[in-house]
Amino acid sequence: MEFVKGHGTENDFVILPDLDDRLDLTVARVQALCDRQRGLGADGVLRVVRTDGQWFMDYRNADGSIAEMCGNGLRVFARYLVDAGHQPQGTFVVGTRAGDRTVTTHPDGSVTNDMGPARVTGTSIAAVDGQGIGGFAVDVGNPHLACVTDTPVDGFDLTVPPGYDPVMFPHGVNVELINVLDPGTGAGVAAESGTTPRGALKMRVYERGVGETRSCGTGTVASVASWLAGQGRTTGSATVDVLGGQVTVTIEPTTSTLTGPAVLVARGELDKSWWDALA
Amino acid sequence: MEFVKGHGTENDFVILPDLDDRLDLTVARVQALCDRQRGLGADGVLRVVRTDGQWFMDYRNADGSIAEMCGNGLRVFARYLVDAGHQPQGTFVVGTRAGDRTVTTHPDGSVTNDMGPARVTGTSIAAVDGQGIGGFAVDVGNPHLACVTDTPVDGFDLTVPPGYDPVMFPHGVNVELINVLDPGTGAGVAAESGTTPRGALKMRVYERGVGETRSCGTGTVASVASWLAGQGRTTGSATVDVLGGQVTVTIEPTTSTLTGPAVLVARGELDKSWWDALA
Repeated sequence: MEFVKGHGTENDFVILPDLDDRLDLTVARVQALCDRQRGLGADGVLRVVRTDGQWFMDYRNADGSIAEMCGNGLRVFARYLVDAGHQPQGTFVVGTRAGDRTVTTHPDGSVTNDMGPARVTGTSIAAVDGQGIGGFAVDVGNPHLACVTDTPVDGFDLTVPPGYDPVMFPHGVNVELINVLDPGTGAGVAAESGTTPRGALKMRVYERGVGETRSCGTGTVASVASWLAGQGRTTGSATVDVLGGQVTVTIEPTTSTLTGPAVLVARGELDKSWWDALA
Repeated sequence: MEFVKGHGTENDFVILPDLDDRLDLTVARVQALCDRQRGLGADGVLRVVRTDGQWFMDYRNADGSIAEMCGNGLRVFARYLVDAGHQPQGTFVVGTRAGDRTVTTHPDGSVTNDMGPARVTGTSIAAVDGQGIGGFAVDVGNPHLACVTDTPVDGFDLTVPPGYDPVMFPHGVNVELINVLDPGTGAGVAAESGTTPRGALKMRVYERGVGETRSCGTGTVASVASWLAGQGRTTGSATVDVLGGQVTVTIEPTTSTLTGPAVLVARGELDKSWWDALA
């Protein structure tokens, strides 16, 4: 069984090429592959399937459960297809359980994902480390409370879950804490001028049900949308520094894109006796 | 650059075959290889060198520092040599910074290491979780305080370092907590009878400067030596269940051996651009 190991902003994956869709990828195999001592170690598995000439990303969490989508994984998946010669550099479509996603690979190894619309739905307050911090509620397919603050985000304790308004977020919410590193070109200029802000943000994120993570793609999109909303804008872009690296987000009124790194670290074969024993 | 990934009782390693001793294995490369998000992920790197027909294990910790020896790593190293066809199954010598070590590979994948003498030097008390627990001080090249107890070891809190006598252990000590699962054949029989005990133990270990680990080879040797010392014996053997699996230790008056699993998980090549960027 062939594999490739890679990561996007330090969210890491084992890629299993299974173009003809023959592999019985059991929960036990996913768990063993992702186990960081007993296996290869990863946050998840990306099984690569080609059906009727269309790519499909079968994403599994490390515990073996099925997930609909993973933005960081999608970049690594796209990078793999180009690296392996299955797909020329450029724009193509990858099917996921959440629907078809358009990706664009770049010569520098980065990949741009279409992230869909980021809808700002209101304002709310997150209780973090004993402080109430205001922010915008942003729906990027999943719920976010993205809070731009002047307090340096490095200082917050995110080992405890932030508090939030349970009426506004009945299913919980991902909380982003954001510093503006550089307001950049266009910020502060009247929206009517037509100038589009290009700034630089720094973000930490508490993912609901998980805890602080090194990167959260939808969280970076929500962060840039929130920063723009604070200026009364619905268009603009920013780099976002996360613990795992840097991505660039562009917000448009009806959609958004995220460009980030996708790094392939190694490729090879799983030991046959090890793999077969997991069947 | 070729690699193999493997583990021994869940202590995991990246093996780098470098038979002609040409590789410049920098600290940055070791750190990146062992990084569990950005790299392959491992507790350490085993560089495989052949000098004048003799094998040498160049072991590095995940932080890039040089270590003298690693018993779990030595088993995986030996297994790799046989698996790769460099060495026939059986007994051979591997050089390490701590000197030459004799290993024996077995058809079931396990490997036996000669661990040198386990010298019982006295008795002392470990303070664990508010309790004082008596045990034997055992020198296996490094210092251990191995405590057989009737209190189930699962219940102890090892998130805080155990207390110990700083006069007896001026450089700190590794503390083992041991339950006897089965006293086995020969235990309770007078030592003069010539019968050798074969028992079954369970061990948890707090490694000095590290914390609780999933396995500690010298700790399992110290545990069996302590269990035997409690019977007034210097010869015997036992299986030892650790968090990462099971090993078998045999104690003799002048030396000891440890037999444990060595599992190879995958083999392949590091991505050239990733590896070259670390130089």
